[in-house]
Amino acid sequence: MSKIYIIGIGPGSKDYLTQIAIKTTEKSDVVIGSKRALDLFDNLHDKIEFNVKNLHENLEESVNLAVNGKTVSLLSTGDPGFSGLLKPILKIAKEKNFSVNNIEVIPAVSSLQLASAKVKIPWDDANIMTFHGRENKGEILETIDNGKVTITLPSKSVKDMAEFLIKSGVNPERKVIICERLSYENERILESTLNNVLDSDFTYMCIMVIF
Amino acid sequence: MSKIYIIGIGPGSKDYLTQIAIKTTEKSDVVIGSKRALDLFDNLHDKIEFNVKNLHENLEESVNLAVNGKTVSLLSTGDPGFSGLLKPILKIAKEKNFSVNNIEVIPAVSSLQLASAKVKIPWDDANIMTFHGRENKGEILETIDNGKVTITLPSKSVKDMAEFLIKSGVNPERKVIICERLSYENERILESTLNNVLDSDFTYMCIMVIF
Ligand SMILES: C[S@@+](CC[C@H](N)C(=O)[O-])C[C@H]1O[C@@H](n2cnc3c(N)ncnc32)[C@H](O)[C@@H]1O
Ligand SMILES: C[S@@+](CC[C@H](N)C(=O)[O-])C[C@H]1O[C@@H](n2cnc3c(N)ncnc32)[C@H](O)[C@@H]1O
Repeated sequence: MSKIYIIGIGPGSKDYLTQIAIKTTEKSDVVIGSKRALDLFDNLHDKIEFNVKNLHENLEESVNLAVNGKTVSLLSTGDPGFSGLLKPILKIAKEKNFSVNNIEVIPAVSSLQLASAKVKIPWDDANIMTFHGRENKGEILETIDNGKVTITLPSKSVKDMAEFLIKSGVNPERKVIICERLSYENERILESTLNNVLDSDFTYMCIMVIF
Repeated sequence: MSKIYIIGIGPGSKDYLTQIAIKTTEKSDVVIGSKRALDLFDNLHDKIEFNVKNLHENLEESVNLAVNGKTVSLLSTGDPGFSGLLKPILKIAKEKNFSVNNIEVIPAVSSLQLASAKVKIPWDDANIMTFHGRENKGEILETIDNGKVTITLPSKSVKDMAEFLIKSGVNPERKVIICERLSYENERILESTLNNVLDSDFTYMCIMVIF
């Protein structure tokens, strides 16, 4: 059946897979995702691996396969609805006249939720922001001093974000907690300051909590 | 071991249970939750059921059990960090001098994420709000006309929320989608207007999406 399931896999380890994610991939004609995402599932009929470089091509191919009658599962890190694959797929589906009624989204735990859990700060009382793949860093300045903690997906990197904040007049001694590679074995939760993270090396897999 | 796990169960059906929620409940001395939550799990040693009426007592009992050396799992609907049990437990733990280091939060899919998935609107581009058990309805008026969709846990009820909005001058013809009993067999997704939901009957288990 012509169908695209956009499936959240959670922050990355098998621990956060849901029953519905497993069931849905198993009944799909083809499952498309990064190697890291595909490796979480055991019983896949047919799979297509993508990486950041050919992501857009592969998203287009996913939609094409569905247009041609396949049931396609597309794996998205965290929650597809938070800086995830929902937005680009909606765009491509529109371009290709693929009906949005044949798209189903299966949510999962976002990395920002696991960061909130690690620092034990309810995120209904936090500023939740994403600068991933966007050019809107300025927006953080509107909320960063509103008395709430800010939990954010950084722009290019933690360093880029810290540099921007300091340059914009935020106190370099401001406390931050960096949550790196959440749910993985080498997960790291580091308390620091804006100033100190300028010189640290982090992978792109970080959530930044700013106090 | 003296430990409290605050475990998200997701929106309600088994579909959204995670592997880590299952594993953690199975290794706990006692699991505490509503009947609906406890029924999701098969292999529990010892369980304590609560309902809304004795919720606070049971949360206190959960902390007491942990103070006395037990490993306690406390089940929270959706994500414990979004209008969930994290906040009241942190408060009780503080009162009882139970160290926050012995509390661990296991996030899960919030009902608002499933609502966002159903209406296929990325929630990084929405106003995410909760009025559940709060007296802050006025805050919605600050964002409701900022051009973004608002996804919210209503105050007392959908009706109460709609009444408040109309009384505050919001257009009664404004489009809303009510997502009721998400993930359950009798799930209902209803497109309507503020005016029309005034006369409808909904259970308390609703997310309101305001366009
Ligand atoms: C394309 S976005 C995907 C976000 C995802 N949809 C979510 O809900 O978590 C990728 C960014 O998410 C964050 N991220 C994803 N997984 C992570 C993890 N396991 N630990 C820390 N950050 C993570 C990082 O900021 C990364 O650069
Ligand atoms: C105490 S709050 C718990 C919220 C929960 N922590 C979460 O993240 O979804 C209870 C409110 O959550 C919403 N809710 C919880 N489960 C739901 C479901 N399955 N369908 C619709 N709304 C739900 C309703 O607004 C309900 O009144």
